[in-house]
Amino acid sequence: MWTASFPSATGEDGFAIHGAIKLLAAFAAPASAGLFCEMNAACYVGDMSRIHEAKTAAAPLRPEVWARTPLQDKQSERDHRDLRIDKVGVRGLRFPIVIGDKAHSTQNTIATIGMYVDLPKEFKGTHMSRFIEVLNAHGSMVHVENIPDILYAMQRRLKSETAHLEMEFPFFLEKQAPATGMTGLMDYTARFNATACGAEIDFVLTVICGVTTLCPCSKAISRHGAHNQRGVVTVQIRSHKTVWIEDLIAIIERSASSELFSLLKREDEKAVTERAYENPVFVEDLVRNVALQLNAHADVTWFKVEAENFESIHNHNAYACIEKG
Amino acid sequence: MWTASFPSATGEDGFAIHGAIKLLAAFAAPASAGLFCEMNAACYVGDMSRIHEAKTAAAPLRPEVWARTPLQDKQSERDHRDLRIDKVGVRGLRFPIVIGDKAHSTQNTIATIGMYVDLPKEFKGTHMSRFIEVLNAHGSMVHVENIPDILYAMQRRLKSETAHLEMEFPFFLEKQAPATGMTGLMDYTARFNATACGAEIDFVLTVICGVTTLCPCSKAISRHGAHNQRGVVTVQIRSHKTVWIEDLIAIIERSASSELFSLLKREDEKAVTERAYENPVFVEDLVRNVALQLNAHADVTWFKVEAENFESIHNHNAYACIEKG
Amino acid sequence: MWTASFPSATGEDGFAIHGAIKLLAAFAAPASAGLFCEMNAACYVGDMSRIHEAKTAAAPLRPEVWARTPLQDKQSERDHRDLRIDKVGVRGLRFPIVIGDKAHSTQNTIATIGMYVDLPKEFKGTHMSRFIEVLNAHGSMVHVENIPDILYAMQRRLKSETAHLEMEFPFFLEKQAPATGMTGLMDYTARFNATACGAEIDFVLTVICGVTTLCPCSKAISRHGAHNQRGVVTVQIRSHKTVWIEDLIAIIERSASSELFSLLKREDEKAVTERAYENPVFVEDLVRNVALQLNAHADVTWFKVEAENFESIHNHNAYACIEKG
Amino acid sequence: MWTASFPSATGEDGFAIHGAIKLLAAFAAPASAGLFCEMNAACYVGDMSRIHEAKTAAAPLRPEVWARTPLQDKQSERDHRDLRIDKVGVRGLRFPIVIGDKAHSTQNTIATIGMYVDLPKEFKGTHMSRFIEVLNAHGSMVHVENIPDILYAMQRRLKSETAHLEMEFPFFLEKQAPATGMTGLMDYTARFNATACGAEIDFVLTVICGVTTLCPCSKAISRHGAHNQRGVVTVQIRSHKTVWIEDLIAIIERSASSELFSLLKREDEKAVTERAYENPVFVEDLVRNVALQLNAHADVTWFKVEAENFESIHNHNAYACIEKG
Repeated sequence: MWTASFPSATGEDGFAIHGAIKLLAAFAAPASAGLFCEMNAACYVGDMSRIHEAKTAAAPLRPEVWARTPLQDKQSERDHRDLRIDKVGVRGLRFPIVIGDKAHSTQNTIATIGMYVDLPKEFKGTHMSRFIEVLNAHGSMVHVENIPDILYAMQRRLKSETAHLEMEFPFFLEKQAPATGMTGLMDYTARFNATACGAEIDFVLTVICGVTTLCPCSKAISRHGAHNQRGVVTVQIRSHKTVWIEDLIAIIERSASSELFSLLKREDEKAVTERAYENPVFVEDLVRNVALQLNAHADVTWFKVEAENFESIHNHNAYACIEKG
Repeated sequence: MWTASFPSATGEDGFAIHGAIKLLAAFAAPASAGLFCEMNAACYVGDMSRIHEAKTAAAPLRPEVWARTPLQDKQSERDHRDLRIDKVGVRGLRFPIVIGDKAHSTQNTIATIGMYVDLPKEFKGTHMSRFIEVLNAHGSMVHVENIPDILYAMQRRLKSETAHLEMEFPFFLEKQAPATGMTGLMDYTARFNATACGAEIDFVLTVICGVTTLCPCSKAISRHGAHNQRGVVTVQIRSHKTVWIEDLIAIIERSASSELFSLLKREDEKAVTERAYENPVFVEDLVRNVALQLNAHADVTWFKVEAENFESIHNHNAYACIEKG
Repeated sequence: MWTASFPSATGEDGFAIHGAIKLLAAFAAPASAGLFCEMNAACYVGDMSRIHEAKTAAAPLRPEVWARTPLQDKQSERDHRDLRIDKVGVRGLRFPIVIGDKAHSTQNTIATIGMYVDLPKEFKGTHMSRFIEVLNAHGSMVHVENIPDILYAMQRRLKSETAHLEMEFPFFLEKQAPATGMTGLMDYTARFNATACGAEIDFVLTVICGVTTLCPCSKAISRHGAHNQRGVVTVQIRSHKTVWIEDLIAIIERSASSELFSLLKREDEKAVTERAYENPVFVEDLVRNVALQLNAHADVTWFKVEAENFESIHNHNAYACIEKG
Repeated sequence: MWTASFPSATGEDGFAIHGAIKLLAAFAAPASAGLFCEMNAACYVGDMSRIHEAKTAAAPLRPEVWARTPLQDKQSERDHRDLRIDKVGVRGLRFPIVIGDKAHSTQNTIATIGMYVDLPKEFKGTHMSRFIEVLNAHGSMVHVENIPDILYAMQRRLKSETAHLEMEFPFFLEKQAPATGMTGLMDYTARFNATACGAEIDFVLTVICGVTTLCPCSKAISRHGAHNQRGVVTVQIRSHKTVWIEDLIAIIERSASSELFSLLKREDEKAVTERAYENPVFVEDLVRNVALQLNAHADVTWFKVEAENFESIHNHNAYACIEKG
């Protein structure tokens, strides 16, 4: 696994690269544009307590009450199986975040998050609630250059050597239709996989992007037409300088028979249909076209390119993969 | 909801129609070709008990022990909320079954099963384990004409007025490629939704079938080529005479630009590509083509046809639906 | 289907009910807090065109060019199958939206959207791109009271009698842990299903909420402990006055053995564990507890309550359902 | 990656290890117990051709017709991008198979299959249809010791250096309830990942198994009860002697608070509830308990153990992982 100390974010060059993340403040400062910024917590909490009464459940204990009763810490007990755990933590956590993009703007999206640490063989368990606390602590205004801070905070808070943070989220770009120039939003999926091993950070950026593929064989052998279909390309990279989500999307889209659009008028549909027919690619061509560009990219040190075509003539898919570096 | 007493299965005409189901014997008679037919249960059980020891868990209690301790029956307690429950039971149960097909053969498949009954307002709960017992009791050799028996057994065993049985499963047909005639297996999905209300049975057959659709607009406006994609058609029917899964598949496949194949050599790919190009259909045409045939079908009393195209030029899908009768 | 003219939104009483939706401006005005608010479109578009060059794809046609070549309108051709289509449109479209909540704040989320209209038997096809145009046209600042406007716009733009809009999205609430009072974000899923039939609007609000359920039978018969599990409750309602997402969540959470939390410290875990043990519910109790409250709700005219428990002792689930009104 | 020539299957010791697979004959010999064993192909084919007429599609070409027209072989054209493709092939193919189990019986199930080869840099594309042909050719009666044959056939047929075969399928075991001894079927998921690199075979067996986990911390700190939930354990192994699916299941089930059952009467539910309460395990304990046994296993040379708990008090999951060897 390639690792390097995490590139310090000096403006542009920093984590704008895959954008600034502001993990949304659950309890944001008034100034913040975050969730619940004007929320009347009292009213909501009142609401909740009414629920509890309705359940004839004990009203929330007062701090001084539970503070007085120390509770057994099972997790910290000594374990004798002599087995270190590589990764332990929480996953499948949905959390609103704010991502900055290349255009120096931000977009709000919903991430599905995983957070893990290693557990030394001496300990019976980790403390799961601390992952959420770390996430909340960095919630109000986190940028991607803060990802190392989140990882280091996990290491400190959970007394671990390694820390892992995964975030997958929808990402949107405005696109112009090829003929009419009409604008629509295209949706993509992006993922961050960040690991701290001691002070060393390993960062993998993943982009998942839909495309059109038109079969060169079908075109070559048929009197007219050619089968084509939606395909999905997944690109993972490591780089010593950060790379934009937008740039990976551009690399993928120019490697297919055509890119996808959300809004196409008839003139655009004509342009896209003809472009795809003039630009046939096998699933093999697709991964090679992407790989060529990543090989040529000055900053990319490792990549894995996968493509899957939802064949329009079969009920199964075609798949190709190249890993490099 | 259309209901009718369930067609009695007189040979051919009976439930062969959507095939004989033999819910596989978990503990099949020696003669049976079922799962574990030759299984040495003793050895396996021994295995399991070793597991329990390994867990230092109490060894299984001997019948006479637990028989002596009557346990409270919470479920049968009186409920005072005065609310009848429409459906209560189990779902997401994977179970191997055997389906008969039109060619008077059988195929083994895996069903995902749901079983529900109504619960009168007087009772606090139903007895979930009894659903599994009914399923097992009909396990050794059940045919579709036995579905009413399963439903009636649920009504008796669970003291209910209504009973519902859902089964969804992969279904396979051997297909010949259009030019070379080479054979391959095509996979489909079928579903049975059977309800008994008193003695009345309501039966809905669902078939889910992949197809190719080629866009008439794209073909008409483009210099060459036309975007096409995989689509999926879902047809649900009620009928007063039973209808074969295979016949619904045939109706769907002849309504699309082309049917799908698992095995296509180059000559076949040419034939399929050209057939699709000569046979463009909108998602609207697709549902109308299916609906026309179901309207004309003597035995179909109600249907719902849905089609969804995984558009090759968009990242979203096109959808159409017609319900009738 | 219950229908009524849509409640006019007079402040509070309006959008607040299920909050303000601002379908996010893909190309928001500078003032807007929307996506890409500071976006340098020019630069991005430049970027895209560079992609096209890179593909040696024809540069976008100039309007006057394609404007000069009228393209065949297949969709508007006459259809002779004499079959009206109930629903035709687009689905699976991911789109960023802004939802207002009861606390008069807003939250940004990502919706998965479906838009459909009916198609008269005379026409061969609908015009799919117009759905996206309507969505974009209402993009900059839409409130729930604007949903009728979107539906009416669909009817006008697509010359249809009926129009359907579906939106499903994650929804977040800040929650305090029961003992420590520490705050964390809980995620829920909400859905709007809105239909215009002529001027009449039918609106169904759906909330999907996770809960804890502890088995009363297991508790009653066991020396100690009781099996419990995560369950999920889905509530759909129609109402003549709008109802808050938050209120449905509260109704669901007070009906279970315990609500769920994202952040629980040990004292909280103790409180939640004990509350659940003191508050056992069958899946049947869960739907009845919710149904009781919905029956008693002045504004609810129809509801369907479903609960599914991911049984901790089985590999299948327990399910119950009550529909009313 | 550990590789070794595939264990030769000497009776017992051979296939049994992960069972005999008979890839089901799509066109099985009369004697076979396979799918369509009695199928009247002629009638069905007739049926299909009627469909084609209905579509006014050309009737299947006669071999001598298409044989006379040689078609361009795009895939075999020379590629100049100088990029070898690591994996290319088909995936998401559903196919009925027969698995043998430890009890020397067989069970029919449905596999989801992926087949891939490498592609030398000289060639533009692979020949996708040949994967299906290889699968069909081995269809009539394949055992696991035939997996190498399938891989070698892929290498020959597709002129490749490496070949990969993936199969994931439901697997069932009959289980006795702990108190009543009543029998029910439990469902599991198993996966084979087999790779041939030249003559060397690498084989990874994966088993996915549901369990009950009860939280030691919750039990220790609470007046009564303890939160518990369904969890899922995924174990992957390499071994120099083959290992039974059943044995991995036993290792997993004895590592949890309790195993799962499909059928439990009240006495059984009492036994399972109490066993789980007496046997609390964190997700960390679960992976350690499994890892201990795999470390001690004479034949296991590499393993990865993952566990995920669907926490009953949270809407997110707890996860742990150990990889070894």
